Amino acid sequence: MEPVTGINVSRRRFLRSVGVSGGAGALFATMGALGLAPVAAAPAPPFRPPALSDFTLTGRAAKRVVVLGGGITGLACAYELGKAGYDCTILEARAAAGGRNLTVRNGTSETDLDGHTQRAGFAAGTYFNPGPARIAQWMVTLDYCRELGVPVEVFANQNADALVYNEAAGRTPIRYRTAKADVYGYIAELLAKATDQGALDARLTAVDKERILAFLEGFGQIGGRADGWAYRGGDHRGFASFPGAGNDAGTPLAEPSSLADVFASDVGRYVSFEFGYDQAMLMFQPVGGMDRIPAALSRAVGPGRIRLDAEVVSVTDQPGGVDVVYRQNGRTRSITGDFCVAALPPHLMARIPHNLGADVTAALNSFPVVAAGKIGLEYRSRWWEQDLRIYGGITETDLDIAHIWYPSHDFHARRGLIVGYYNVGDGARAYGEMTPPQRLERALEQGAKIHGDKYVAELAGSFSVAWERMRYLEGAWTAPPWGSAAYDLLLRPAGKVYFAGDWLSREVAWQHGAFLSARSVVSALHQRVVSR
Amino acid sequence: MEPVTGINVSRRRFLRSVGVSGGAGALFATMGALGLAPVAAAPAPPFRPPALSDFTLTGRAAKRVVVLGGGITGLACAYELGKAGYDCTILEARAAAGGRNLTVRNGTSETDLDGHTQRAGFAAGTYFNPGPARIAQWMVTLDYCRELGVPVEVFANQNADALVYNEAAGRTPIRYRTAKADVYGYIAELLAKATDQGALDARLTAVDKERILAFLEGFGQIGGRADGWAYRGGDHRGFASFPGAGNDAGTPLAEPSSLADVFASDVGRYVSFEFGYDQAMLMFQPVGGMDRIPAALSRAVGPGRIRLDAEVVSVTDQPGGVDVVYRQNGRTRSITGDFCVAALPPHLMARIPHNLGADVTAALNSFPVVAAGKIGLEYRSRWWEQDLRIYGGITETDLDIAHIWYPSHDFHARRGLIVGYYNVGDGARAYGEMTPPQRLERALEQGAKIHGDKYVAELAGSFSVAWERMRYLEGAWTAPPWGSAAYDLLLRPAGKVYFAGDWLSREVAWQHGAFLSARSVVSALHQRVVSR
Repeated sequence: MEPVTGINVSRRRFLRSVGVSGGAGALFATMGALGLAPVAAAPAPPFRPPALSDFTLTGRAAKRVVVLGGGITGLACAYELGKAGYDCTILEARAAAGGRNLTVRNGTSETDLDGHTQRAGFAAGTYFNPGPARIAQWMVTLDYCRELGVPVEVFANQNADALVYNEAAGRTPIRYRTAKADVYGYIAELLAKATDQGALDARLTAVDKERILAFLEGFGQIGGRADGWAYRGGDHRGFASFPGAGNDAGTPLAEPSSLADVFASDVGRYVSFEFGYDQAMLMFQPVGGMDRIPAALSRAVGPGRIRLDAEVVSVTDQPGGVDVVYRQNGRTRSITGDFCVAALPPHLMARIPHNLGADVTAALNSFPVVAAGKIGLEYRSRWWEQDLRIYGGITETDLDIAHIWYPSHDFHARRGLIVGYYNVGDGARAYGEMTPPQRLERALEQGAKIHGDKYVAELAGSFSVAWERMRYLEGAWTAPPWGSAAYDLLLRPAGKVYFAGDWLSREVAWQHGAFLSARSVVSALHQRVVSR
Repeated sequence: MEPVTGINVSRRRFLRSVGVSGGAGALFATMGALGLAPVAAAPAPPFRPPALSDFTLTGRAAKRVVVLGGGITGLACAYELGKAGYDCTILEARAAAGGRNLTVRNGTSETDLDGHTQRAGFAAGTYFNPGPARIAQWMVTLDYCRELGVPVEVFANQNADALVYNEAAGRTPIRYRTAKADVYGYIAELLAKATDQGALDARLTAVDKERILAFLEGFGQIGGRADGWAYRGGDHRGFASFPGAGNDAGTPLAEPSSLADVFASDVGRYVSFEFGYDQAMLMFQPVGGMDRIPAALSRAVGPGRIRLDAEVVSVTDQPGGVDVVYRQNGRTRSITGDFCVAALPPHLMARIPHNLGADVTAALNSFPVVAAGKIGLEYRSRWWEQDLRIYGGITETDLDIAHIWYPSHDFHARRGLIVGYYNVGDGARAYGEMTPPQRLERALEQGAKIHGDKYVAELAGSFSVAWERMRYLEGAWTAPPWGSAAYDLLLRPAGKVYFAGDWLSREVAWQHGAFLSARSVVSALHQRVVSR
């Protein structure tokens, strides 16, 4: 695998630098290798796309490649191979490229496996990303946005002013900042007491103890030693009415709940989400909808190379090439490539007749499929901004809707679209089994527990996606059998057929994984071609 | 004071609701009053701007008001009074309205009190906000952005991928996410040990203990009981190289520093910043520069009502009106208002001859002035994004530059502007006493410790502001003597002269405070006029 993070340090280089320095010097060497220390360090080579000169200088000819699936992986394969002049053709079964990278806009129509048809009736400018919706800074997805000229903006993945709603703890929505302040306040109180009482003297020096106590006072806004380090609230919680003019020092919120109640309500579980290496802010989104990425890739690949409504019927690896039969507009057609990249979901590829061997089919069938769903709720006013002063972010709930996402863009516009649920697994399957009107009704009923009548009254339109019910996708993502022989088998080509997708990465369900899997296959295929 | 938060709950209403319910029910009642609970609650009346009908329906006439100072406070006074037809004239000593709300663009020129002239040579589109730069969601500033049609976007006030650099701890820049993970990891380890050893049994039930231990395992990524709850790092810290395709599970960072070293390095002090009720994300900024706000206010007030380069010479409260003498373009002029609003910094108003009494002068002189400064560094490439994958946010340092801010907008553009220092107090005075080239040299030297040669090599332009050296401002903000007779004196009009500014609020140094002080004076003045 080529290194792809912007820090440009390969694993080998990294390990060598740490190994050479060792001990106390290791961290310094590491930071130097990361380019974070002031010492200049030549970056290790990043992914090198195939180039036209790889052929013009060697007299070799670029090859024909048939790509199965026009999701992010397939598009990225064709895009990167196209840089060297490979003659790529993408076969995409759906009416548009992008795969799960889908943005619903006014007029978007979708008929699911159950025959339910939805057609979005949104205002111009309103959009809904039912699939990927956020990008971490370290993800290669951002490099493609830069390279392809797709503008990005902050995606609000956490917001102190969004809410936490735990029905089990008594239907009391509180601000995320309040919930967090109470958790941290009690944590600080407990640790300060234990530290000060000498309970941790085996682990801490006197100096450590003073430093930790000083930290805890600021971290948890707790009282001092004379006060038993008690947590009784503080302005980290926010205010009922914030400070203003003259002598208006603000109106505090009511007292915090007791320590027992705070931990019983389990609000702490939401806190750790914000530390996830893949979820910590800042996160990003393309301006105007996630499908700006496949749209830009499609333009770069060339629309003539993408055959839409083209359902693959069979794949046969022959001595002279890979023959792919597909059905398009009621006709059966075929195409032959020197190579083929299968960039379909594994459980769908497993169903397509092929001559790649039973072990390949078995391996493809060893990826359990995960269900997930979202609903987009368009509102004719942005009541969450105007009435509640929630400008983006996520309200966490213990309801079956799990989360409510507020939009991260077009603040103060007339309308806006909320994600009314984003659930995974059982919750997703439950919503997925409902009709779209039933899903809407349920989502509104649940959300209104938090947001009241406006949640229903201001609704302008909606659209829901149950990924496991979507044609030619049939799942949100998979749970790859990492470490298995089956997984490893698919990392190698079966004859002249390569497999690629986020499902062949360690970042499944992220476009990052799809892009890197594509790069990996592109590098391997190109290496094979130029070294022959 | 009228309530102004979007939650629309007055202090009185709030206190009543809490008082009525009391005890266990108080929190529920509070949430209901906040509009967060599903029960419908009629919102308390927000600020009511003066209206034309207040006069047309009563036969009374709107009055002439002279406003001293065209900063946010003065502009807001004229804007709100103008809604009822008051004939307002703003006298602004500087060449443009806005006061400390200043945005530096290509061609911006400024000569400071020491005679140093700077002229910004930036690319088109580059801007620098040396004054206010961020807006919290609860601040009334956002309401003015909505009302005036100033688009806003997220201001990146914290970023997991920005850096922490503690020279005192050994010149090792680490990601903010890494620093935070280590602090939380050791906190979790310590509290888990103490909890599990029974040191907190006086405070915790067995159920509490299990819940807290479960929380700490996720919060700090610590080992379990069998492992002594030890913190040894985890993926919250980030990776040297993030997970990728195939079997690339990512390359971990080097081991965390020891508990003693983590707390000795004092990185914990940066952690609490993110919980500040006025600093917690999400924060916002106007698209295109903070001065979009005074520009929109100026348009709404009407440019004909704003006299620029107009330095106030004297203020005299006479029986027939308030006479204000000012100097403009070398000429001495005068203007008379039925009322006057003095919206200048208090220490500057104190110097202007007036007949409002020695106690007013003494009160105006009782506001200690705070120094602060920033430098904008324009770069010809966005190396922090491309090389370091830092997309906005703040790097915290223990250097005299204090902070480095990366831009929150125009991601992936060709150029960008970094704030190379933002310091307050002694640090600001030290930089303020340097010439602009000296400040630049010092800022580059310090920043290069973290970012290396590019910090110097890629520089395209710079502009620095030392607020205490700025003409007609002479300070970043003040430290109001809240609770003093002097402060309270200035909350009341001196005859027909009112005082207003962020310095007469509990949110000093924020535009929120300026806007609310303006609203307060507008309400008081209008009430006096219509009730006469």
